[in-house]
Amino acid sequence: MSTSTKPFVVYFAVTPNGVQPTILLEELKAFYPAVDYDIEKIDISKDQNKEPWFIKLNPNGRIPVLVDRSRDNFPVFETAAILLYLAHNYDKDYHFWFDPVKEPKDYSEMLQWIFFAHGGIGPMQGQANHFGRFAPEDIPYAKNRYINETKRLYGVLEIRLADRDWLAGPGRGKYSIADIKAFPWVRIHKFAGVETLDEWPSVKAWVERNQARPAVEAGLAVGKSS
Amino acid sequence: MSTSTKPFVVYFAVTPNGVQPTILLEELKAFYPAVDYDIEKIDISKDQNKEPWFIKLNPNGRIPVLVDRSRDNFPVFETAAILLYLAHNYDKDYHFWFDPVKEPKDYSEMLQWIFFAHGGIGPMQGQANHFGRFAPEDIPYAKNRYINETKRLYGVLEIRLADRDWLAGPGRGKYSIADIKAFPWVRIHKFAGVETLDEWPSVKAWVERNQARPAVEAGLAVGKSS
Repeated sequence: MSTSTKPFVVYFAVTPNGVQPTILLEELKAFYPAVDYDIEKIDISKDQNKEPWFIKLNPNGRIPVLVDRSRDNFPVFETAAILLYLAHNYDKDYHFWFDPVKEPKDYSEMLQWIFFAHGGIGPMQGQANHFGRFAPEDIPYAKNRYINETKRLYGVLEIRLADRDWLAGPGRGKYSIADIKAFPWVRIHKFAGVETLDEWPSVKAWVERNQARPAVEAGLAVGKSS
Repeated sequence: MSTSTKPFVVYFAVTPNGVQPTILLEELKAFYPAVDYDIEKIDISKDQNKEPWFIKLNPNGRIPVLVDRSRDNFPVFETAAILLYLAHNYDKDYHFWFDPVKEPKDYSEMLQWIFFAHGGIGPMQGQANHFGRFAPEDIPYAKNRYINETKRLYGVLEIRLADRDWLAGPGRGKYSIADIKAFPWVRIHKFAGVETLDEWPSVKAWVERNQARPAVEAGLAVGKSS
C-alpha cells in the first residue's frame, strides 16, 4: 500500500483517455496548491486492467480511474466523469468549467460537447484504430466506415469552432473540460488513419491552441517521464 | 412556426436515444405541473436530421434534440446532456438525480454510469445493430466483435446490479437518469443479436423494474400514438 499523502491517484496508461485527468490535474495545480496526484501505471498489454483488484475500482476494466484519498478512497471511472468530479469538487472558482446554477446554458453546452466527444469521437475513432491497426483481418468496409465517421465528427467540430477558440462558453469561448475531453483524441488523428487536419482548419488551429498550454504539455508528458 | 406554449419541444424518433427525454419528461410531469412538451417527429429514413434547419439545432445531425422555449429556445443535443439539463434546471427537488453539492459521491456515481452507457452500451450496441442488420456485407468478424462487446457490457451492469435495484444511489439505489440512460438500450437487446438476458439475471430484473413504471410506459408510447 502507498503511504503517499497526495490527495489523488490516477490509474493511468498513455492513451487519449488516460491523459485527460492528468491534463486537468496539471491545470488545477496552478490555481489550487492542495491539488497533487500520484500515477499508478497500468500495463494494458498485460491486461492489468482486467485483474480482480482493478475490477473493484472499475467494473468495466478500463483506464483511467481516479481515486480520491481525501474522500475515503472514493473511486471514479469513465474519463468524462473524472473530469466532472474534479470540476464539481475541486475547481470551486470555475476556472475550467461553468457554474451549473448561474451559467446554466454554458454549463449545458459544455456537457453537450463532452458527451459528443465521449459517445462519438472516442468510440468511433477507437474503432478506426482497431480496424486500421489491430484487427486480425483486413476488412475494407469496416475500415472505411470508421475513418469516414471520424472525419464526419471532425466536420461537426469544425462547424462549432469556425467562429470560436474553445468548445464552450460565451463569445469565442472559454477553455474548459470540454476541450480537455475532445483534444487528446483529435490530436492523434493519424493513428486512426486521418493523415492531416487540413480539411478542418478551425479544428487544426484548436488542436494547436490546446497543445500550446503548458499544463497540457505537462499532462501529456506524465506517462513518458515517470 | 408552432404557437404552442408548452415549455419544451423534443425532436424525436422512436429509437433507444429518442425515448430517453420522453421518459424523463413523463416522470417529471408527476411532480412538476409546469412540465409539458410537444413532440416533433423526425423521419430519420428521409435524413430530415441532416437538413440545414436541423443542423442549426444539432451540428451532429442526430435525434433527440430538446428545445427549451422558456429560455429563448435554447437547444440541447446529446441524449445524456438533455437528461442532465432537465435534471439540473427542472428537477429542483432531486427526484431523479442527486445533489452535486450535498451528495457528491452519489452524483458522481450517477454520472459514471451515465457515461458508461453513453460511451459504451449505446455506441457498441449500435455497431452490433449495424453489422447484424444494416451492413451491405456479411462480416462475421465485425458482427461477433460487437455482439461480444455488448454482452461484456451487460456483464458489467450485472456486477453493478447484483446487490441493488438501480444504478446509482445509496443502499439498493434510487431510480435516476442513469437508469433512464441505460435501460432503453438494454431493453432492445434482441435487435442487437442478444436473444435473451438470462445470462444476466440482475440486469433482466432491472429491465423489468424500469418497464413497470407508468412514466416509462408513457414515455415509450409517445412516438407510437402521436
